[in-house]
Amino acid sequence: MLGKPVADYLQTHRDEHLSKFFELLRFASVANIKGKPDQCHLAAEWLAGVLAEIGFDAVVLPAAGKPNVIASLHVDDKLPTVLIYGHYDVQPADPLDLWESDPFEPTVRNGAVFARGASDNKGSHFAYIMATEASLRGGGNLPVNVKFFLEGEEEIGSPNLEPFVKEHAEKLSADLAVISDSGFFADDVPSITYALRGLAYFQVTFNAQANDAHSGMWGGVLPNPINALARMIAAMQDETGRIMLPGFYDDVSELSDEERQAWAKLPFDEKATAAALGAKAFTGGETGYSLLERRWARPTLDCNGIVAGYTDRGAKTIIPAQAGVKISTRLVANQDPGRIADGFKQFVADHTPEGMTSTVEVLTSARPLLLSTDSPAMGAAKAAVQEGFGKAPAMVRTGASVPAVEIMHRLVGLDAILIGFGSPSDNVHAPNERFQLDRLWRGSVTAAAFLQNIAGGPSKW
Amino acid sequence: MLGKPVADYLQTHRDEHLSKFFELLRFASVANIKGKPDQCHLAAEWLAGVLAEIGFDAVVLPAAGKPNVIASLHVDDKLPTVLIYGHYDVQPADPLDLWESDPFEPTVRNGAVFARGASDNKGSHFAYIMATEASLRGGGNLPVNVKFFLEGEEEIGSPNLEPFVKEHAEKLSADLAVISDSGFFADDVPSITYALRGLAYFQVTFNAQANDAHSGMWGGVLPNPINALARMIAAMQDETGRIMLPGFYDDVSELSDEERQAWAKLPFDEKATAAALGAKAFTGGETGYSLLERRWARPTLDCNGIVAGYTDRGAKTIIPAQAGVKISTRLVANQDPGRIADGFKQFVADHTPEGMTSTVEVLTSARPLLLSTDSPAMGAAKAAVQEGFGKAPAMVRTGASVPAVEIMHRLVGLDAILIGFGSPSDNVHAPNERFQLDRLWRGSVTAAAFLQNIAGGPSKW
Repeated sequence: MLGKPVADYLQTHRDEHLSKFFELLRFASVANIKGKPDQCHLAAEWLAGVLAEIGFDAVVLPAAGKPNVIASLHVDDKLPTVLIYGHYDVQPADPLDLWESDPFEPTVRNGAVFARGASDNKGSHFAYIMATEASLRGGGNLPVNVKFFLEGEEEIGSPNLEPFVKEHAEKLSADLAVISDSGFFADDVPSITYALRGLAYFQVTFNAQANDAHSGMWGGVLPNPINALARMIAAMQDETGRIMLPGFYDDVSELSDEERQAWAKLPFDEKATAAALGAKAFTGGETGYSLLERRWARPTLDCNGIVAGYTDRGAKTIIPAQAGVKISTRLVANQDPGRIADGFKQFVADHTPEGMTSTVEVLTSARPLLLSTDSPAMGAAKAAVQEGFGKAPAMVRTGASVPAVEIMHRLVGLDAILIGFGSPSDNVHAPNERFQLDRLWRGSVTAAAFLQNIAGGPSKW
Repeated sequence: MLGKPVADYLQTHRDEHLSKFFELLRFASVANIKGKPDQCHLAAEWLAGVLAEIGFDAVVLPAAGKPNVIASLHVDDKLPTVLIYGHYDVQPADPLDLWESDPFEPTVRNGAVFARGASDNKGSHFAYIMATEASLRGGGNLPVNVKFFLEGEEEIGSPNLEPFVKEHAEKLSADLAVISDSGFFADDVPSITYALRGLAYFQVTFNAQANDAHSGMWGGVLPNPINALARMIAAMQDETGRIMLPGFYDDVSELSDEERQAWAKLPFDEKATAAALGAKAFTGGETGYSLLERRWARPTLDCNGIVAGYTDRGAKTIIPAQAGVKISTRLVANQDPGRIADGFKQFVADHTPEGMTSTVEVLTSARPLLLSTDSPAMGAAKAAVQEGFGKAPAMVRTGASVPAVEIMHRLVGLDAILIGFGSPSDNVHAPNERFQLDRLWRGSVTAAAFLQNIAGGPSKW
């Protein structure tokens, strides 16, 4: 339970906080833009400055790409340390002509602030910053040791995160991580995400003859690597969508009846979602599982890209020399990307026909995450959301992998709870991105309450 | 049987003919090069000039791309008219650094002239020109009416041939066509080609959601057009290579035992061919048929190109919005491209899963050709090859389609016999293309004998 002074502080400093938030939103901190002055560097320096002003030991640390901010406020060795993750980089704003106001000049309309990055993810991590300020200035001190880790390349896939985390593992060490880069399940459904799917992503190449050959002269004689690749891909799933890689389901944790029942009650609007995606039907995945079960708790196999032979306009009569495909599997607890890769390689070898050779490259992989929903940390999180938003959170999973979560888990040994304040209706990655102001106010209360609740929990997290 | 004066003329004019042939080879008449002066135009003008000098009524006719040459020497209304087809355009010469001598400065080494286009196809059609000159100047007159049709865009797929033939159908009318653009089965095996495969070439597109979607958020829910396309492609052939399109084999003419036995005796060096193609094994096509049977007399299905989703380096976790593939079938007598297209479209429709739409576009099609090997024209051809090369020709087919043959058949009603003088060892489409001089001498004798033999045959061909 949050003390009155902290809550009051947040209540009485809204104008000041909003004005600061607008400053953050004005940085066009798009990671793949190289400008001078660099807006990512400026945003990172600004964040470090704000955190230092609050009392943090804050540094902007260079990385191979855009810099990252690490800040630490150590209260007491006996207290647990919470690491709060967010990212200050944002999606590109284009197409600009579809914005109703300048994406980098925040504008309030109907109780929401419109700006690129307002929801993804500046709003959520700024709420955590506000919470620490309120705890210190309103409550007198932070209830726990707090670190911030604010990344600058999340929107381009965190390509330089792993070596950075490796290099600064000591600075990032903590007892528990909170990821602000998540959100509500639906507009009125504050949520805590307790599971992520993992990933094993492969590049497969089939090589036949040395060069493309004339399909008239050699059709019926030379083997065709596209046709062979298609046969292999087709064989990877049966007609019910079940994945046929050897040992693929051996380690899969089945859903509990409790989870199934809870998810069945979530207000998922299938029609509206299909319309938003321009989808004709949700026919992907395995039969026998609900839509949310297939998105969150079942492993998948998808071709992400394929290219071979002649792909320009019109007809060219060739049998290609080679064909390549990118195939990825999403993994659920407690599948191991390494074991999945072994089975995948075996399958490809078994389906490489005579007359061809094949190669498999593992392009990227990430372990799935599944946290207990009954842990003390989850208890602290649930109570905090209840306090901030006035209702119990929905306990949800996500089908995606979050590179930062996986990397910090693997390199720093941190378990991460995902509590963010955006909405599916916030137009993230689209024109007119917005963040509801109420989320900033209630989110900062939730964040402060979470830190307070953690302080009241076990000494070792 | 060729008269002695004609044979003597060819024998005594070798130096002069070789010198003329070299002039033709010096034109860098590559159809996709736009230079000034244009080498294709110069080559066409040169050929028309040479034919006019012999006595032909020769014109260079403009087309949408490079021009074509039509020449006619009409002797007598009572005589049949033979149309001789060739192409003066050549493959590009690059990579230039692999040539041992300038590709457009003909050089004689070891009894062969090395130059781009020497074998494909300048050598063969020039032999026919020599034959007409010898018949006229040595023998006193042409034994039949002769037309030449020399194309300028064969190496780029004859994209403008069809409207040209349509426009000039009258000028191209004849009783019989001879295609000089073919060759020997092997170095010591002069050959007559009596069948071509046809073609039906399709573009198939599967459309799923409106945009590429995040494979983590939507994997297991949204259908994947690459996986669906792969399943469809895989279903198009069974494990013996048999094509499963509805009605596909209904009209296929089976091989006669006679043909099977004759082909089994042809000296096909599988190892050397595999090495030349950089092929690991000839595992394409249907089981139960020999290599030559599969190349020449069985229909095939090959993917010629495929592209979808993310195809650049590294990993991008998307479910693509759509996927497209180019698929072609080679057809044998007496399959009809239109019926095949109907079956193909039906198959695609039947294999388009729920949640997707599909489109099929017919990109190009050509009817197969199968001539009787016992016709008077074939008799004339066989005897001519026997006379020119001192041995009976191998009667062979080719797996390819020749657009000119199909177009002239369809628009002018001409049946074409293929008699050319190149060799598989001539490095056509490769560096150091060559044409053996002996082929020029014996080829011109063969060509002259053929015209003579036709004159002695039925008045109506």
